[in-house]
Amino acid sequence: MISTIQPATLSKMANAIRALSMDAVQKANSGHPGAPMGMADIAVALWKGHYRHNPSNPKWINRDRFVLSNGHGSMLHYSLLHLTGYDLSMDEIRNFRQLHSKTAGHPEVHVTPGVETTTGPLGQGITNAVGMALAEKLLAAEFNQAGMNIVDHHTYVFMGDGCLMEGISHEACSLAGTLQLNKLIAFWDDNGISIDGHVEGWFTDDTPKRFEAYGWNVIRAVDGHNAVAVDAAIAAAKTSDKPTLICCKTVIGKGSPNMEGTHNVHGAALGDKEVAAVRAHIGWDYAPFEMPADVYAAWDAKASGAQAEGDWNAQFAAYTAQFPQKAAELTRRMNGDLPANFDEVVANAIASCVEKKENIATRKASQNAIQAFAPSLPEFLGGSADLTGSNLTNWKECVAVRGNQAGNHINYGVREFGMSAMMNGIALHGGYIPFGATFLTFSDYSRNAIRMAALMKIRTLFVFTHDSIGLGEDGPTHQSVEHISSMRLIPNLDNWRPCDTVESAAAWAHAVKRNDGPSTLIFSRQNLPYQERSAQQIADIQRGGYVLQDAADAKAVLIATGSEIELAVKSAAALAEQGIAVRVVSMPSTDVFDRQDAAYKAAVLGKGLPRIAIEAGVTDFWYKYVGLEGAVVGIDTFGESAPAGVLFKYFGFTVDNVVAKVKATLA
Amino acid sequence: MISTIQPATLSKMANAIRALSMDAVQKANSGHPGAPMGMADIAVALWKGHYRHNPSNPKWINRDRFVLSNGHGSMLHYSLLHLTGYDLSMDEIRNFRQLHSKTAGHPEVHVTPGVETTTGPLGQGITNAVGMALAEKLLAAEFNQAGMNIVDHHTYVFMGDGCLMEGISHEACSLAGTLQLNKLIAFWDDNGISIDGHVEGWFTDDTPKRFEAYGWNVIRAVDGHNAVAVDAAIAAAKTSDKPTLICCKTVIGKGSPNMEGTHNVHGAALGDKEVAAVRAHIGWDYAPFEMPADVYAAWDAKASGAQAEGDWNAQFAAYTAQFPQKAAELTRRMNGDLPANFDEVVANAIASCVEKKENIATRKASQNAIQAFAPSLPEFLGGSADLTGSNLTNWKECVAVRGNQAGNHINYGVREFGMSAMMNGIALHGGYIPFGATFLTFSDYSRNAIRMAALMKIRTLFVFTHDSIGLGEDGPTHQSVEHISSMRLIPNLDNWRPCDTVESAAAWAHAVKRNDGPSTLIFSRQNLPYQERSAQQIADIQRGGYVLQDAADAKAVLIATGSEIELAVKSAAALAEQGIAVRVVSMPSTDVFDRQDAAYKAAVLGKGLPRIAIEAGVTDFWYKYVGLEGAVVGIDTFGESAPAGVLFKYFGFTVDNVVAKVKATLA
Repeated sequence: MISTIQPATLSKMANAIRALSMDAVQKANSGHPGAPMGMADIAVALWKGHYRHNPSNPKWINRDRFVLSNGHGSMLHYSLLHLTGYDLSMDEIRNFRQLHSKTAGHPEVHVTPGVETTTGPLGQGITNAVGMALAEKLLAAEFNQAGMNIVDHHTYVFMGDGCLMEGISHEACSLAGTLQLNKLIAFWDDNGISIDGHVEGWFTDDTPKRFEAYGWNVIRAVDGHNAVAVDAAIAAAKTSDKPTLICCKTVIGKGSPNMEGTHNVHGAALGDKEVAAVRAHIGWDYAPFEMPADVYAAWDAKASGAQAEGDWNAQFAAYTAQFPQKAAELTRRMNGDLPANFDEVVANAIASCVEKKENIATRKASQNAIQAFAPSLPEFLGGSADLTGSNLTNWKECVAVRGNQAGNHINYGVREFGMSAMMNGIALHGGYIPFGATFLTFSDYSRNAIRMAALMKIRTLFVFTHDSIGLGEDGPTHQSVEHISSMRLIPNLDNWRPCDTVESAAAWAHAVKRNDGPSTLIFSRQNLPYQERSAQQIADIQRGGYVLQDAADAKAVLIATGSEIELAVKSAAALAEQGIAVRVVSMPSTDVFDRQDAAYKAAVLGKGLPRIAIEAGVTDFWYKYVGLEGAVVGIDTFGESAPAGVLFKYFGFTVDNVVAKVKATLA
Repeated sequence: MISTIQPATLSKMANAIRALSMDAVQKANSGHPGAPMGMADIAVALWKGHYRHNPSNPKWINRDRFVLSNGHGSMLHYSLLHLTGYDLSMDEIRNFRQLHSKTAGHPEVHVTPGVETTTGPLGQGITNAVGMALAEKLLAAEFNQAGMNIVDHHTYVFMGDGCLMEGISHEACSLAGTLQLNKLIAFWDDNGISIDGHVEGWFTDDTPKRFEAYGWNVIRAVDGHNAVAVDAAIAAAKTSDKPTLICCKTVIGKGSPNMEGTHNVHGAALGDKEVAAVRAHIGWDYAPFEMPADVYAAWDAKASGAQAEGDWNAQFAAYTAQFPQKAAELTRRMNGDLPANFDEVVANAIASCVEKKENIATRKASQNAIQAFAPSLPEFLGGSADLTGSNLTNWKECVAVRGNQAGNHINYGVREFGMSAMMNGIALHGGYIPFGATFLTFSDYSRNAIRMAALMKIRTLFVFTHDSIGLGEDGPTHQSVEHISSMRLIPNLDNWRPCDTVESAAAWAHAVKRNDGPSTLIFSRQNLPYQERSAQQIADIQRGGYVLQDAADAKAVLIATGSEIELAVKSAAALAEQGIAVRVVSMPSTDVFDRQDAAYKAAVLGKGLPRIAIEAGVTDFWYKYVGLEGAVVGIDTFGESAPAGVLFKYFGFTVDNVVAKVKATLA
């Protein structure tokens, strides 16, 4: 609580944020002063009154989480981190928005200490926060013991009108209400302004009513420039058994005598003249980037942070003494380390596939992999966007998360984007490896969350089933033709399209082991035949592409993925009968293959041999492997509504067509 | 009103839908019987009691629009079309979900007469409908005269829990409330079931309260199996000055004695045994696909439809007599024809660019093109997702649409996906050419709506500004590196990335003239230099790619787009100084270029010359033009937060680097 602090001190603390923000934006001549200046008093209430963190250890596992969903207001966050004592120097503030500074245009996790997620694309920050709050709740249920709440922290979110207009805020906040995430406290910066001007022309929601409809605790009409009032609202929010929205009425750009309350302060430097006017208006008598000692003293959180973490460390020591295994397990999981026996678990799973030689849909093979791994991976947190029985993301022992009840499988509802950005929040929080599924075509809905996972280098596993025209009768609205290739274009994303049970288990293993980025796992609706492999071939699946079938005098190389491996293998046999030997390369992950050394890649693709790629999707992507002299068997139109078998024939995925293409290429 | 019809007749009309739906799904052994059986009584109330349409002329411009947002229930719509007299025979019903039938898995516009939009990806149907209702309202304001409401029809939508969970339903319904679209009437199929089971585990919204928060008229707790009650609710809805949500409590799969009310009836055939049980339960004594004459007689809408259209025709004749120009204009616009002088307008606009030779950002060049075209294109309906001043989609004379007030520029708010799917609805309704903008990176948010426009072959113009790293300080969350290439993979989508004022105007012209699909128009934040061209070169922009600068003894071909044309031209000059002549190809639209004849393409790209592509984006796509022997100057990582000039240098978009790459390729 901050009620014991002098009003003048509170005001000066807020003005320090205003000054730093406007000065940094002015120096960069780029950025957003409006939100930091408007939310400065709210920030004082939260960060001085409630936010439990240790600037000296931004990775303390039981810290509160703070998410600036209106990430354009990044200077607000940087100001707070600098002032409370994080490793973010005034030089970094001065370098706002410059190459390789720690003060990027929008907050970026892993770049700036104390930043919990990368925000900017509106609506995803609040959704990440819902995921963080869910992770906290589930982890608490799993690890806390009587009197020992080892996992016990809040997730706080700042957001503006933009986030509230975005559809994803509906998905995330609706589910947060259903799941009663009472440690989630969100602040609505109700300033009535968005970039186009006064919002009443395009945004007239009764937002408190909307959030009540989601089952939230709503605290209405708080004066966002009265830090003590905000502080009291936070205290009240903490006692609720629901997530809380604190509606803070604010003036955007507060402190700017000539521009506050207008959209002109939103996204551009105020200009030297108005910066000077602000100084006079708020009584800030310091030079740009000069910060008086009393402000540092008022804001400094290093001592209180060390105390908070120290108290927790003592409690955790007691917990460790009493529950050594649980303590070790929590530490392992929060570090993102896998169990020591994981390689063995994978080897056993793959051995079982080899033994059974099943011809099953890869979505079923995926479920088998999940089933094989889950007992050893308590951090598995599965889910589906209302397609559980189709995506097969559940396993025998999994427990559905329901209302206030913990579990390890989430029915996300029909909320693909929300699911994906929540999973990112879960991965960022730590303690879990989240995976969630929908049909591949609906990856479009969640695409920017997949991108954000790749940008943040986090371990989120995106499962997509019913790929390509094999989906069949649901038709072109549900048939992915461009999706796999289009996701291959996202930097730092590994995409996997396995062809059988062994590749499916191997893909899952790779995705789980990868600790510097997300993966997609793409599976078929229909059955696919088991392929025989040597031990070396099985090992080489981890390299993304490998020779599945070779021929001593190969005249061409067929490269295929997923459901088209069967066609490639059959076509190779037909060509062999006609005296044309070909090699078959299985390429379940072009992304992983591309990272291999040049010698390996050359050995797999061959030198000087014409190449023919086969994939039931758009052809453009494959020319990087087959060049102008090769050929691609693919689909460059949308699909059709018909049974899968009819469609593969109709679109030319036949042995005859492949054989003809190979011959034409050789001619 | 249907209150004068015998209850037994109403019931039999509903059961006809149930029987057709379950029999078609059973025969296809694929499909969704649950929604058609559950919503059959609602369909009777709407289609018998209120829906104003003419089965003999599905294109009557003043027809009501009907959107099945829960498109998986397609057999409901097909049943209604068949029974009321559309050109959809019983053979087509029998052929449900078979290749090239008119009865695809999900309803597809332009495939089935009477289907207004292609639905299936949840949430987009209701959003298309919001767009249709907005188009109706704006068109009515523009064309109706005292006592002559030439444009005067309703838009009706069926939707289930899935659509309501999707984020886009928030975006669209929020804006529909703000814009007071009182002729929009939506029916919520409140059956408490989604694919994963009973929704209370993942969907506990107070939906009526949510929609009241949006400013809708909500009619609660209507018995969805009481057609007369639903009929009365519709009558009440028509008197509201707000959009209406009619909450219909239903039982999914109603009529199935052993499966109704469970998720088992959602998405699979009932099985022969249960189909027989339904027949007994609802007293349907007819064979599959046998329809008794009394049911046809009860449902037939050909006479009433002819009457309704006839009345309107008479009114329109009177209107034409009094306002011949307006009548002609309405007809032209609803036909999607351009004004006769449009080519001249384009020629003048381009001539003006040539005369001015301005070095301006292409987003500004885009605004100039809009400004040049708008006076001649009253069908222009612009907009932006809260970035109007950045996207520059407005023009001098444009009028903002506000509340109940008409106009021709829409502040869509921060609702990229909603904007895009609304634009699709506007294009489908007819009378307008919608365009709307956001930053290119946020095309991710709207991606599936762009895909749907391409699938539906409609003229929606997606404007994206601030492309690539030229966006600068906002950083990697806002910098598109993969987006252009990833959209090039969507079939039937034309993507344009112009390099200067002339190409920007030409791209706009091409997109406006194209009447069989959507286009993206991608523009820079930063200034780009004007390029000199011959008249032939200007004409060839319409071919997507052309030789911008040639050299008699060219040793290589540089292919570039947008902001990298300047670099290509400068690099060509530097190479020429070193005695290496190169050709420069400008390729503003690879999609359009790919459609040109082989001779033209070969002439532009040259034969046997090494090719080097230059684009500030991911490289993968370009190998289809440069092959394995060529090179690509691009970015295969995410961007960085810094000023644009710094970034172009940092990522190697320099003359030195291009020159080195060309030399390496020639070596």
